[in-house]
Amino acid sequence: MQVETVSLKALNEGPASAFVERLGGVFEHAPWVADRVAPRRPFASLADLFHGMREAVEGATPEEALALLRGHPELTFAGAMTRDSVGEQAAAGLDRLSDAQRTRFAEFNKAYRERFGFPFILCVRRHGRDSILREFERRLILPADQERETALKEVLRIAALRLDQRVSGPDRLPVSGRLSTHVLDTAAGRPAEGVEIELVEIASDGAHSVARAATNADGRTDGPLIMDRPLPIAQYELRFHVGAYHRRQGIPLADPAFLDVVPIRFAVAEPEGHYHVPLLVTPWSYSTYRGS
Amino acid sequence: MQVETVSLKALNEGPASAFVERLGGVFEHAPWVADRVAPRRPFASLADLFHGMREAVEGATPEEALALLRGHPELTFAGAMTRDSVGEQAAAGLDRLSDAQRTRFAEFNKAYRERFGFPFILCVRRHGRDSILREFERRLILPADQERETALKEVLRIAALRLDQRVSGPDRLPVSGRLSTHVLDTAAGRPAEGVEIELVEIASDGAHSVARAATNADGRTDGPLIMDRPLPIAQYELRFHVGAYHRRQGIPLADPAFLDVVPIRFAVAEPEGHYHVPLLVTPWSYSTYRGS
Amino acid sequence: MQVETVSLKALNEGPASAFVERLGGVFEHAPWVADRVAPRRPFASLADLFHGMREAVEGATPEEALALLRGHPELTFAGAMTRDSVGEQAAAGLDRLSDAQRTRFAEFNKAYRERFGFPFILCVRRHGRDSILREFERRLILPADQERETALKEVLRIAALRLDQRVSGPDRLPVSGRLSTHVLDTAAGRPAEGVEIELVEIASDGAHSVARAATNADGRTDGPLIMDRPLPIAQYELRFHVGAYHRRQGIPLADPAFLDVVPIRFAVAEPEGHYHVPLLVTPWSYSTYRGS
Amino acid sequence: MQVETVSLKALNEGPASAFVERLGGVFEHAPWVADRVAPRRPFASLADLFHGMREAVEGATPEEALALLRGHPELTFAGAMTRDSVGEQAAAGLDRLSDAQRTRFAEFNKAYRERFGFPFILCVRRHGRDSILREFERRLILPADQERETALKEVLRIAALRLDQRVSGPDRLPVSGRLSTHVLDTAAGRPAEGVEIELVEIASDGAHSVARAATNADGRTDGPLIMDRPLPIAQYELRFHVGAYHRRQGIPLADPAFLDVVPIRFAVAEPEGHYHVPLLVTPWSYSTYRGS
Repeated sequence: MQVETVSLKALNEGPASAFVERLGGVFEHAPWVADRVAPRRPFASLADLFHGMREAVEGATPEEALALLRGHPELTFAGAMTRDSVGEQAAAGLDRLSDAQRTRFAEFNKAYRERFGFPFILCVRRHGRDSILREFERRLILPADQERETALKEVLRIAALRLDQRVSGPDRLPVSGRLSTHVLDTAAGRPAEGVEIELVEIASDGAHSVARAATNADGRTDGPLIMDRPLPIAQYELRFHVGAYHRRQGIPLADPAFLDVVPIRFAVAEPEGHYHVPLLVTPWSYSTYRGS
Repeated sequence: MQVETVSLKALNEGPASAFVERLGGVFEHAPWVADRVAPRRPFASLADLFHGMREAVEGATPEEALALLRGHPELTFAGAMTRDSVGEQAAAGLDRLSDAQRTRFAEFNKAYRERFGFPFILCVRRHGRDSILREFERRLILPADQERETALKEVLRIAALRLDQRVSGPDRLPVSGRLSTHVLDTAAGRPAEGVEIELVEIASDGAHSVARAATNADGRTDGPLIMDRPLPIAQYELRFHVGAYHRRQGIPLADPAFLDVVPIRFAVAEPEGHYHVPLLVTPWSYSTYRGS
Repeated sequence: MQVETVSLKALNEGPASAFVERLGGVFEHAPWVADRVAPRRPFASLADLFHGMREAVEGATPEEALALLRGHPELTFAGAMTRDSVGEQAAAGLDRLSDAQRTRFAEFNKAYRERFGFPFILCVRRHGRDSILREFERRLILPADQERETALKEVLRIAALRLDQRVSGPDRLPVSGRLSTHVLDTAAGRPAEGVEIELVEIASDGAHSVARAATNADGRTDGPLIMDRPLPIAQYELRFHVGAYHRRQGIPLADPAFLDVVPIRFAVAEPEGHYHVPLLVTPWSYSTYRGS
Repeated sequence: MQVETVSLKALNEGPASAFVERLGGVFEHAPWVADRVAPRRPFASLADLFHGMREAVEGATPEEALALLRGHPELTFAGAMTRDSVGEQAAAGLDRLSDAQRTRFAEFNKAYRERFGFPFILCVRRHGRDSILREFERRLILPADQERETALKEVLRIAALRLDQRVSGPDRLPVSGRLSTHVLDTAAGRPAEGVEIELVEIASDGAHSVARAATNADGRTDGPLIMDRPLPIAQYELRFHVGAYHRRQGIPLADPAFLDVVPIRFAVAEPEGHYHVPLLVTPWSYSTYRGS
């Protein structure tokens, strides 16, 4: 879902029509939001621009608001979707659902739309596989008022992410999280270099690979394992291949080695948070913790 | 494979015929071993008795030794096996092989017998699923002399285990290992009570449940997770249900909790060793190590 | 303060006079307590016997209770003390006070007696150097009623300890604590043997040696560092000589070694508790925690 | 010992006389070194400039080299010293020696000069109190050839530090170390803010305060505890006031708290290294390690 980026400066200085053309899609099938904020230019920062859009949405008539919600596609691929939605749902793995899962989603969608009169809207980039279903279950039984508010909040989260991708400028929106790690060889008192690491999402339908990396001379991966996007709410496992590392150090190990692949299982609850999950390791012990 | 136990005292004091009847099966299809040690009674301890049997085997003629090796069943269920062998192979999961695995075993057995002239003998109670195959691969390429020695060593290991099960007395044989754990709540400074723990064997064909327990007021399980038998050489995972524990303590957790089920993956290399694998845990960190 | 021990059985079966003779000193200058409980013999356990004595004290007239409090010596060596009190105060280091400290104690004692009409009573074996002074300060400002109760509670604590030393029998009184340690070499995955350990009390007037020991093959000291007596409320430091240990293992170390003597500083707040304070150590890292 | 800094560029572009004037003191009483390298200007970096100076020293005649060594002051304040030497020795605490220590130094100096024919030269900024004496003892018994080399190496270390202080430019000399820390509250899963930390040097004559700081919102001190200078070879103690921190978090603690001031004792062996010594702490446990 690569979208061309434009600078806030260009949007501020260009004609209103260009502004609306570039930002009309930030709210799904609702270019009127961009239309209403265009006269409020120039914006000093992305935060200001988003604030203006949020006010436009909150100031909409009930009919407009309902139409905004109804303009969103269902969380399947049955309906017509905008290019943004296709990309977002693909990123969440929704294009790789099993038949049973598709059926389950279809039933949820139907029940939800019958109950609330608009499709289930979720900023899917903030959720892992299991979390999407849990949200469905949780929200399907909320009172209508409260659920409408929840849906609108998700619409704004989707818009913030789209804005962050489309426009560069000062004061970026806090839409991204970060997942990083660090491996220390506490028997040798130095960073563990060359440790292979896999990050997998642990879902009810199995483990799904998310990233792979190896530690550098400082015991860190060259960049965070996840960055510049939300961390999907999910269970993860970091798998550290410490057996191979220790063998390369020439350390005599048991056969099989007491520790070979060390799995650290943890959950992300704040998609915009920083999760630093280090490993302090010897051939016979290890520690981990949420660091900073 | 429950075998009735007899005391060493009774064997020492009874007739030679009773001694041979009870211990004739310690060496597979080779009651002559018991026969030869009977006149050396009384034995002061199990260690002494086993020492005598070992000497009888080591003093056998080359023909007897070869016959002893040939008397063992193959590691499948194709051939006729003694009651002991049936039980031992069942304990190793050999009665639950997939068709592909059975075929693999059959091929190995055939290649092995052609090469060495006797069946592949392994004290299977000392090995997990994957380890048995690795031993096959490792030993199939050994020089004949060395492999014959290896096979005899395994015969003696099988015999020691059978003796340990059949006879009670002073100086037990060191045929058993022990796997224990301990959970400390290092945020509260006290043992973690009521933590559910599963022990699973991690094999190439999946995870197989070995034991389940919960911690008591001292943070320990009421008994070791494995005891009174060898620890099979294998990869294991201890899974500690700390999320549920922390929730019961009324500690506010993230949703989902950062730590829910903590998996500690380790391998056993010494079946007769003591593996103490504790967990020091808070809602946001943990440590483990091979303890004592 | 070694006192000859007598069995509860002997006290139960002997004459009342012998009972009073042996236990008359359990309450300072108040043999009447033993006198009153003698007719209630036989006692099934030490707990029962102490329970009887406690009831006798609680059932005393206000005059008797006040006399009981007044019968205790001051926490100096100015007055006449019973043999028990001399021993107890010596154990607390009160016979090694500096002149300034003696003066301070004298002033406190004077102020206390003027305010409450009886001497300051404290079960000194439950307190370290600094804790005694803190108790003085804390109690000197309590309301008279509350302080009298506090004083009586201390009288009973002193009595329980004296009883525990004088009489053997079932159901020992819970007057003792335990301080133990354990050193694990988490780089080698085994207990650290031969680590020298000092236990010192850290007081405002300096560090005072309490015990010394070395770890055995299991990484533990042969017995607890403190046992069979209360753990004085105080700050302590366990000093582990890990540099020498690592050098003996032939491990190449920096010069000077990153870790030489590892000090673990902690406080005891429950004199009757079990404090297990282990050390998990490599040449470059360590952990400690209150264990069990 | 604040020295005015000049840029390498200015030294490259100015007259040779200015170069010699500014850098004549880099080698004690040996402006001829600067004199000889001046014609080799311009230098691309500080490393290049130092390399040139080192070559000049190594190319000196034996008489010049001996004179260079003899030009250094003794490690006391008896003799005439250059302004640099006064500052360097003061930084090492040599101006605060006790009478006994002064006498000891004087004896060492005398023995050394008699044996080798030049004064004992040590880059004192790389050493703590005890380490200076140990170096004296260690070097006094070296063969003359080896000790002359050692002395020359120290001369170059002193020169590198002086150059680093006098000249700014690309490719700084690796003369500085760094000591940093980090405190994580592993019970709460976040950095520990507001923890007061003292760094003290632990010497045979007592503990000497080196630095004080408190942790910020990220659990770190605002800058490293030592930076921009060598870390003196010595034993240190970092003292973390975690009891006060935990009380501020409103966590119920024992009285006295199990952990109040946590001392981490470690030694620096590489003055130009980076020592990161973090603390992972709960009210009942902690860990530390040499990190990165």
